[in-house]
Amino acid sequence: MIVSNMAGISMRSSIRSEAKKILGLIKKHDRGQILIHTSPDGDAVASAIGLFRVLRRITGRYYHLFCPKKIPERYRFLPHCQRFSTRPKITDLSIILDTADLSRLPGWKPSGLIINVDHHDSNTNFGAVNIVETRSSSTVEILMELFKYWRIGIDETTARVLYAGIFSETGGFVFRNTNAKTLSHASILADLGASPSDLGQSLMRQTTNRLHLLGLVLTGIEVDNGISIIRVTRRMFKQTKTTVDETEGFVEIPLMIPEVKISILVKELPNGKTKVSLRSKGRIDVNRIAHHFGGGGHRNAAGFIMDDTIPSVLQKIIARLRS
Amino acid sequence: MIVSNMAGISMRSSIRSEAKKILGLIKKHDRGQILIHTSPDGDAVASAIGLFRVLRRITGRYYHLFCPKKIPERYRFLPHCQRFSTRPKITDLSIILDTADLSRLPGWKPSGLIINVDHHDSNTNFGAVNIVETRSSSTVEILMELFKYWRIGIDETTARVLYAGIFSETGGFVFRNTNAKTLSHASILADLGASPSDLGQSLMRQTTNRLHLLGLVLTGIEVDNGISIIRVTRRMFKQTKTTVDETEGFVEIPLMIPEVKISILVKELPNGKTKVSLRSKGRIDVNRIAHHFGGGGHRNAAGFIMDDTIPSVLQKIIARLRS
Repeated sequence: MIVSNMAGISMRSSIRSEAKKILGLIKKHDRGQILIHTSPDGDAVASAIGLFRVLRRITGRYYHLFCPKKIPERYRFLPHCQRFSTRPKITDLSIILDTADLSRLPGWKPSGLIINVDHHDSNTNFGAVNIVETRSSSTVEILMELFKYWRIGIDETTARVLYAGIFSETGGFVFRNTNAKTLSHASILADLGASPSDLGQSLMRQTTNRLHLLGLVLTGIEVDNGISIIRVTRRMFKQTKTTVDETEGFVEIPLMIPEVKISILVKELPNGKTKVSLRSKGRIDVNRIAHHFGGGGHRNAAGFIMDDTIPSVLQKIIARLRS
Repeated sequence: MIVSNMAGISMRSSIRSEAKKILGLIKKHDRGQILIHTSPDGDAVASAIGLFRVLRRITGRYYHLFCPKKIPERYRFLPHCQRFSTRPKITDLSIILDTADLSRLPGWKPSGLIINVDHHDSNTNFGAVNIVETRSSSTVEILMELFKYWRIGIDETTARVLYAGIFSETGGFVFRNTNAKTLSHASILADLGASPSDLGQSLMRQTTNRLHLLGLVLTGIEVDNGISIIRVTRRMFKQTKTTVDETEGFVEIPLMIPEVKISILVKELPNGKTKVSLRSKGRIDVNRIAHHFGGGGHRNAAGFIMDDTIPSVLQKIIARLRS
């Protein structure tokens, strides 16, 4: 028990009021499952593993871990990743983390009691108990506040997992969601044994092939009138022995150019379709463009797929942006 | 005065014992200069600006700012950068920051009283008063502890400057020097008004030309037996309209590949010579190699210049590494 080190964790009153109720429900249902959204990000994965470890200590039981998709390779250095199943169990209690709505849990049918813990402002409050704290930069940080209230302490391994979640969700403490509290929580986890350099480097690790692909992509970057375009063709994938999965994060890079307000990444899928990722700065809404083409997302991050070639897709997007 | 927000800054006893003495000396000498080492990094620049602002408040005077070289473009978004002079003044008091030894201050002749504040373990204790705190990740953090002792408070602009220094020196909180205290200090500065996303993005900003150059460089990355090689030729500079200055940070990138233990960057200088930068992980000492070829640095970061072509230089380095 290392509760003393958690003194720095501040707790929002909205969380405090539900914390006791949730602990009571967990103690009543010692067999349950923890669920996270499909195509999980680092915050979702870390939240689930962190809560899994804490519930094991509270109840002595191993909660079932469900995610509709396989855990991405880059998070698999975290412990317990092999425990995630793409098949849900039927249990009396389901704790759903970091998931805005139930459509993001394909394959799972709601049953029993649902606890909903999330930080997305689009969350539909689908639980019997809901902690939706949109001011929190990550779901991990909400859990840290719960753990503090529960006086359960955070062991070194759990601290590492939670740190990885915060680091991922804030893009290494540079996304808009990073605030003083985020850094303070990260500091507490470092104090509990999470190594910032080890975890940062694990999460930013690259392969030679991926750097070759990035090289080809950056060589062709085009910037015009505040809009950047980068392309990934099937030929590039073949030439560098990479797959579509390895383009993660590429679309963010052109945003480091101050004059770029919209970043467009087009990639040729194995089936010949074109996948488009859009990013924007500030108040520019790329979700509307994605929506127009049958896709979706958020204001600053959205995407869609079109059954068309790269040049044709780009032409249509640019025409839409100009209109 | 925002002293209350500084409660979280812990102060090492080694710093506390000198803090009062330094304040006394500063109050006695209201005309002085602040000096930082040649080819300054973000920590040096931020330390000098931060101290400049605080001394202005304490003494009502503008201390002279000296750096033997121009402040690099990427830090010039920070306030007061235009005040740095490459000519020293003769003053009764010189406060030298982040500078391991006086050879790193070409053009300046020691005179009057010297205060030496640094975190490098190679510091030669050249001052009348020396605060050399090697456990501190940055010189900025030592200054934060001094400011706390002086009860001077940190205004929002100063907080931004100091945050930029910590972010630079820790590579965005991922270098080995990042610890719980580093993150806690960054959190305090964010609380005082430094925006982590604005500052992170300012420090990581890119130009289209630089990304084109990076693309060409990454396309040619070679990894063999734990050693990575990247090359920047004069032709690449010409093709992308860039200069040697714009390769800053490139040599760090291959270290993100887990199997790479040594990263070698060779670049062709305008005069036809070849500049070599070496980086290594953990206990591997690249300083010895640099030293062999007439250069220098630290165990994990060193470099040298040779009057020879890229292929010939590489052959010699590889031969040396194998011996």
